[in-house]
Amino acid sequence: MTSQRFELAIQLRWGDMDSFNHVNNVQVARLFEEARVRALADWFGGPDMRVTVLVARQEIEFASPLAYTLEPATIVAWISRVGTASFDIAATLTDPAGRLCAQVSTTLVSIDSSTGRSAPLTQQAVSVLGDHLGDPLPFRHRS
Amino acid sequence: MTSQRFELAIQLRWGDMDSFNHVNNVQVARLFEEARVRALADWFGGPDMRVTVLVARQEIEFASPLAYTLEPATIVAWISRVGTASFDIAATLTDPAGRLCAQVSTTLVSIDSSTGRSAPLTQQAVSVLGDHLGDPLPFRHRS
Amino acid sequence: MTSQRFELAIQLRWGDMDSFNHVNNVQVARLFEEARVRALADWFGGPDMRVTVLVARQEIEFASPLAYTLEPATIVAWISRVGTASFDIAATLTDPAGRLCAQVSTTLVSIDSSTGRSAPLTQQAVSVLGDHLGDPLPFRHRS
Amino acid sequence: MTSQRFELAIQLRWGDMDSFNHVNNVQVARLFEEARVRALADWFGGPDMRVTVLVARQEIEFASPLAYTLEPATIVAWISRVGTASFDIAATLTDPAGRLCAQVSTTLVSIDSSTGRSAPLTQQAVSVLGDHLGDPLPFRHRS
Repeated sequence: MTSQRFELAIQLRWGDMDSFNHVNNVQVARLFEEARVRALADWFGGPDMRVTVLVARQEIEFASPLAYTLEPATIVAWISRVGTASFDIAATLTDPAGRLCAQVSTTLVSIDSSTGRSAPLTQQAVSVLGDHLGDPLPFRHRS
Repeated sequence: MTSQRFELAIQLRWGDMDSFNHVNNVQVARLFEEARVRALADWFGGPDMRVTVLVARQEIEFASPLAYTLEPATIVAWISRVGTASFDIAATLTDPAGRLCAQVSTTLVSIDSSTGRSAPLTQQAVSVLGDHLGDPLPFRHRS
Repeated sequence: MTSQRFELAIQLRWGDMDSFNHVNNVQVARLFEEARVRALADWFGGPDMRVTVLVARQEIEFASPLAYTLEPATIVAWISRVGTASFDIAATLTDPAGRLCAQVSTTLVSIDSSTGRSAPLTQQAVSVLGDHLGDPLPFRHRS
Repeated sequence: MTSQRFELAIQLRWGDMDSFNHVNNVQVARLFEEARVRALADWFGGPDMRVTVLVARQEIEFASPLAYTLEPATIVAWISRVGTASFDIAATLTDPAGRLCAQVSTTLVSIDSSTGRSAPLTQQAVSVLGDHLGDPLPFRHRS
């Protein structure tokens, strides 16, 4: 049995480039943010029904520069850890030629929106996240 | 005979929103920039073959707030003026329900990339632009 | 008698540049937005007490490219029109050498935050705005 | 003897906020990018003389939300590792009240600008970086 991953064709913008003429590394984080929002909307049934989360941690590795292209790039996202009050989403970004450009792991903390404080994930959220659980990313360059 | 307009399904990003919970007005200019780049790439045969241009002037009118949606918004762009060394691109942005959110007119100046100075549009550029010529936008709120 | 203008030393960011190696024209609108927010905060006594406004219209003219520099650029802003339910803010952006890079006029509409609809400016708002009233910008390139 | 750290008063922008009404986490990476560029410019004697580098890896931990304020936030940056062809810059971001909002470690790879490939750091670069060497950040939430 394999878990279901979320795949997004993400439209690049000319303005994502910086003066090095590639998609800026901060904008790569912007692309990953978009995939995360859409993955959660897909898994939880809509942008308004998604679990309220804050980003607690993010680790990105850049494998090769991403050029601006008219065709979309591809982001594949999945859950790589489910904890008590937090979970990790892993994702990869590949260019239209299929080359890996970056990979990311983001830790999201579940928030009780009435208090703004961290709160345990609901049973339902744990169950939904579990349907999309896959392996953690093999980060190569951690010091 | 009608000129050919360029239509783009533009993907919104959650990060385009500001703290008012709508797509930020500066990001609307970013969306229009993207449509402009893609229209010129389409009309001139690719991102590398496009005429070298700088933005000299821009006028935007905001008709109604654009909400972030998973479905793309639509931008339609056309040429609204062709001059000797500059031209105008007009565009409209509508949300997935077809409601007009913003309209823009942008003046682009032709640049000789070897000198960085303004230069007359080539005959070929004038001809290409002429194929996409339409009416100027009816801006309502000019003071 | 001269009205009081708002002057802001605005810090540029390397990431404001696009692949042309200058501050991107959309980011220039971002810089003007920041000056607008701070001017209103200054005039109305704080970011939380400012009049609730939406951008209805914006006209920008770009005079010369703005290079990224470690020193801040300068934006000067003033009110150029006060209407019944809207007003215009004008502003200029100059680089550290004092060269004019861009000028903008932005129409802001007063909003009743309980209904989200346009509402007349209060007497107090009209009075505050009047203290910063100056001439409209001489836009040169309107078609 | 303590190494010299780089401290930057960084101006926040209203547009850095997202719809959660705090400085967006991707924009926090933008702020750290700015500090990195300015630290290297300071240490290497100007933006044009800085070592040519690409971001290979970045790890950010978010400690508490950063509110938009008219006063600048503070970023302190230092070198946390010097390798053969790469080095790490660590940095912390604190709000005007002195509260830690985020900390980051970024791995930069030295690039030979004529070939675009990774190249050993020069002796001079190693020496300059060594003058700003401090402890690595204690990341708490690595899985």
